[in-house]
Amino acid sequence: MRAPERSVELTQVTEWKDGNILSVRDSLASEEPLEIRVGGVPLTVTMRTPGHDLELAAGFLLTEGIIESAEQIGSLRAPVQENIHKGNVVEVELKNTSFDPKDLQRNFFAASSCGICGKASINAIRSRGLQQPDRNFRIQPEILCRLPEDLLSEQAVFSRTGGLHAAALFDGSGQLIALREDIGRHNAVDKLAGWALLQQKLPLSQCVMLVSGRGGFEIIQKSLAMGIPVLASVSAPSGLAVKLARELGLTLIGFLRGRRFVIYANEFRCLANN
Amino acid sequence: MRAPERSVELTQVTEWKDGNILSVRDSLASEEPLEIRVGGVPLTVTMRTPGHDLELAAGFLLTEGIIESAEQIGSLRAPVQENIHKGNVVEVELKNTSFDPKDLQRNFFAASSCGICGKASINAIRSRGLQQPDRNFRIQPEILCRLPEDLLSEQAVFSRTGGLHAAALFDGSGQLIALREDIGRHNAVDKLAGWALLQQKLPLSQCVMLVSGRGGFEIIQKSLAMGIPVLASVSAPSGLAVKLARELGLTLIGFLRGRRFVIYANEFRCLANN
Repeated sequence: MRAPERSVELTQVTEWKDGNILSVRDSLASEEPLEIRVGGVPLTVTMRTPGHDLELAAGFLLTEGIIESAEQIGSLRAPVQENIHKGNVVEVELKNTSFDPKDLQRNFFAASSCGICGKASINAIRSRGLQQPDRNFRIQPEILCRLPEDLLSEQAVFSRTGGLHAAALFDGSGQLIALREDIGRHNAVDKLAGWALLQQKLPLSQCVMLVSGRGGFEIIQKSLAMGIPVLASVSAPSGLAVKLARELGLTLIGFLRGRRFVIYANEFRCLANN
Repeated sequence: MRAPERSVELTQVTEWKDGNILSVRDSLASEEPLEIRVGGVPLTVTMRTPGHDLELAAGFLLTEGIIESAEQIGSLRAPVQENIHKGNVVEVELKNTSFDPKDLQRNFFAASSCGICGKASINAIRSRGLQQPDRNFRIQPEILCRLPEDLLSEQAVFSRTGGLHAAALFDGSGQLIALREDIGRHNAVDKLAGWALLQQKLPLSQCVMLVSGRGGFEIIQKSLAMGIPVLASVSAPSGLAVKLARELGLTLIGFLRGRRFVIYANEFRCLANN
């Protein structure tokens, strides 16, 4: 874990307000590249907000389908070589897996030429053998409506920048379980996934995840990898996200604002008498 | 160019509103993978909203520094093989360039191990030899304040989904020049970049670009590749985005809402008497 202060930077900026010009001090969300290495081989570089880097790396491996459990992580560390990598590298050793990082690029391109379409993307997720999320979990509409406000008030404690995406887990009674933030919305979700993985809390079968960004295909894919039954967002999902949620049994909620929301898939988990 | 209807899908959803449950018809933004091939070799796959795919591919090549002008594009086409690729492939042939797509992955990983930090990221942009954006361009605060509303009213004409990111170009008098939308904010910017490239309008030295998403490092990089002097957003930039904008001479504006905005870099282009 990094010191929290690495995630925020202070700088002097100019504010224009109705014709008045002020010089003010402002907090900015930090953004730095993180390289994730598996078995010594660079796997990916992502632009992220420093902090919870080990969780981010572990969560990325989980949600991208490279590992399925914490037992497959032999070691996970951020080498301290400040003058070389500035703490922006996480090194992972895997075990009990057939994954060979040297094959990744070849596989990626092999897969990508055998059917580039939404249906092929859904089939690729299906072929990972992900379980349907728990069909017995329920959450009441009145509880759902409270979540965005709870997320915002909790975020205010952590962030002063206004520039961070958030992903948060709540239980069925609306209690906040965990919250992660990042300049990238995929990274916020991966940090949460890595937290759950390393804390041995998977699958998250009794949880709602609320994300601050839009619900695209990749966020649904990551939710399914975490075993989450209900994904909610204050914004709109994509057409492909809705198809994937419907096919794989995830409850998908959008436009969760005030006392209104839209259910795009598997409404039985949040409408009464089901 | 694709038919506009491919960018929107209709579906039946359930609306919960203050305890009342309604079944309603909703428009969703389409999301499909697009594979960009250079010289027959797959270069990248991006999840995008179909439409303006040729612009997206051309813009990606420009803003990622693979080409610098439209003259380097020998051919650009989306092969119609509906039963194989569903129109989700763009094939590009380059000329007058030393770029070899087969080297891309090797180069990427070679570069990424020699200094993973924000400073290295900025140096990589510097090393592309991008020009400083035009220092004579000016835009008045009163005009800036009108842009978000103009963008929203223009977006309403094109999109009915509420789920799309937008990037728009305006001239110094606030006239809208071009607007592109996508489920991904990077893609919206690349579509705009591709439009400018193919229309021979580069560099965009007399333009403001307004983006609906956050101003991260990669959006600044893409703006610089387009020669844009002023980038504005309704949200916050990252710390690294501000550093890059300051070092490379871009005027960066955030929190552009109502009659207020914050200038993070190179304020001379929008404050009077400069």
